[in-house]
Amino acid sequence: MKESVPDYLKVKHTAESWTREAGEYIKDQMASSSFAISTKANQHDLVTDVDKNVEAFFFDKIREKYPEHRLMGEEGSFEKIKDLNGIVWILDPIDGTINFVHQSSHFAISIGIYEDGHPVVGIVYDVMNGDMYSSLKGEGATFNGEKISPIINNPLNESIISFNSGWMLQDRRLERLVKEVRGVRSYGVAALEIAYVAVGKLDAYISFNLAPWDIAGGYAILNEVGGKATNYEGKPLNLLTKDTLIAASPSVHSAIFEKITK
Amino acid sequence: MKESVPDYLKVKHTAESWTREAGEYIKDQMASSSFAISTKANQHDLVTDVDKNVEAFFFDKIREKYPEHRLMGEEGSFEKIKDLNGIVWILDPIDGTINFVHQSSHFAISIGIYEDGHPVVGIVYDVMNGDMYSSLKGEGATFNGEKISPIINNPLNESIISFNSGWMLQDRRLERLVKEVRGVRSYGVAALEIAYVAVGKLDAYISFNLAPWDIAGGYAILNEVGGKATNYEGKPLNLLTKDTLIAASPSVHSAIFEKITK
Repeated sequence: MKESVPDYLKVKHTAESWTREAGEYIKDQMASSSFAISTKANQHDLVTDVDKNVEAFFFDKIREKYPEHRLMGEEGSFEKIKDLNGIVWILDPIDGTINFVHQSSHFAISIGIYEDGHPVVGIVYDVMNGDMYSSLKGEGATFNGEKISPIINNPLNESIISFNSGWMLQDRRLERLVKEVRGVRSYGVAALEIAYVAVGKLDAYISFNLAPWDIAGGYAILNEVGGKATNYEGKPLNLLTKDTLIAASPSVHSAIFEKITK
Repeated sequence: MKESVPDYLKVKHTAESWTREAGEYIKDQMASSSFAISTKANQHDLVTDVDKNVEAFFFDKIREKYPEHRLMGEEGSFEKIKDLNGIVWILDPIDGTINFVHQSSHFAISIGIYEDGHPVVGIVYDVMNGDMYSSLKGEGATFNGEKISPIINNPLNESIISFNSGWMLQDRRLERLVKEVRGVRSYGVAALEIAYVAVGKLDAYISFNLAPWDIAGGYAILNEVGGKATNYEGKPLNLLTKDTLIAASPSVHSAIFEKITK
C-alpha cells in the first residue's frame, strides 16, 4: 500500500542538518588525525574509517526517522539496492577521499534522495568551506541558502570545463575541447564539480567512471537549475551502475557532443 | 650608498595588512558586479578594472611607505623592471583572473619581495577563503598564522600533481606522469597551486608559461619549507622573463625529471 506523499521540504531540512553534523564529525576526526586509511581496489581508491563511520551515522539516522526509506551508500555496509522503487537515499559519505586524505580539503558529502528513480532532494556539502548546495524538486536549488540562478548557456569558447587529465589518454577527442575552451580544471571531487556546474563556476564536468553515489546529489541540484546530464553516449543516467557522465549547461552539453562525435 | 638592513618582519606584516585590505576591495567590487572586463592578448587572458585598481593601490602604498622599493606588477602600470637589484616587490594583483571573472573564487593576490634577486617575503592570499600563506626568509612559512611543516617527500605513485591539461598537447611525456601519480588536478591559479605544494596539498605543480608575478610569492613560500622550483629544463628560476616551472617536493621534482627526460 502506497503511503501518503512525504513532506520533502522537511526531509531536505533534516538531511541538511544531519549533513552538517556529519561534517563536524569529519573535521573532529581530521583534527585528531587518528583515522586509518586503506586502499580498496587500487592506489586511486582509498577508504578511511571516517567514510565508513559517516555512512553508518546516516544509516542509523534514516532507519530511525524514516524506516520506510532505503539507503544506497558507497561503503556498502547496507542492503544491496537493485532497483530505485520507493524512496532511496543515495549517499557518498566522503566524495573525493583522495583529497580528504592528501589535502584535508576539496571533499564533499553528497546525498541524492530519489523517489521511484526521480530526484527530489539533492545535497552537496563542501565540508571544509562549509558551503551547502541543495535542492528540492520543483522548488529550485540554493547555495548557502541563496537561490541559484537558472544555468547560463555560455558558448564553448568562453567555457571552463573540468575532467581528469587521465581521460584524455582514453579518448583523444577530448583534446579538441582542450584547444577550444577558455580553461580546463580538475578538482578530483565529482559531486562538487557537478555542483560547480549548477552554480556556473564550471560549464561542464566530464568523467568516464562514476558510481551512482558520486552523481546522485549533484544531479538533483543540476536538474533544478536547468542543467543537463547524460552519460558519454548521450543516454539518460542510470543510477544503479557505474557509468560515464557529461554534466553541463544545455549549450555546452550540445557543443561537447558536436566536438567529440565528429 | 647602501641603506641599513630593513626590518623585513615589519615589511611582511605591512604587506599582509595591505593584502587583506585589497582583498576586501575585491570582494566589494564583486558584490557590486560593476567591473569591466577586457581581453588582453587572447581569449585566455582577461584583465579587469579590479586587477588594475589593486595594482595601483599597492603602487601608491609602497611609494608612500617604502619609496626606495621598486614594484614589478602584472598590469604594467609602472616602471619597467630590467633587473632585481635592491628591493623589488613582484605583484600579481589577481592571479587566476579567469577564475575571478568566471567562478568568483579560486583566485589569489600574490606578492614576492626580493632583495638583490633573493626571496625574503612571500604572500599568497586566497581572497574568497581568506586563507593567508606567507613566509619570511630564514623564519619559515605560515598558513593562517600557523607554522607550515617542512615539505613531505612522497613517492611519485602516492603524489597528487597539478598542471593544465593543455600542456599534455605540448609535451606528450606528461602522459607518463598522469599514468603513474595518484591524482592530477588543475585549479587555474598558479600562485595558489605553488602554495598548495608548500603545504602538501599537491606534491608538484607544472606550468609551461608563467610570468614572474605568477611565481614570485609562491616560490618564496615554497623555498622556506624545503620545496624545489626550477624551470622545465632544471635551471634556476629567472624572475625577469616568462618561463616554464616545476615546483615540487625534492623527491617528486627528481622523479618528474626522471620521467620526462628518459
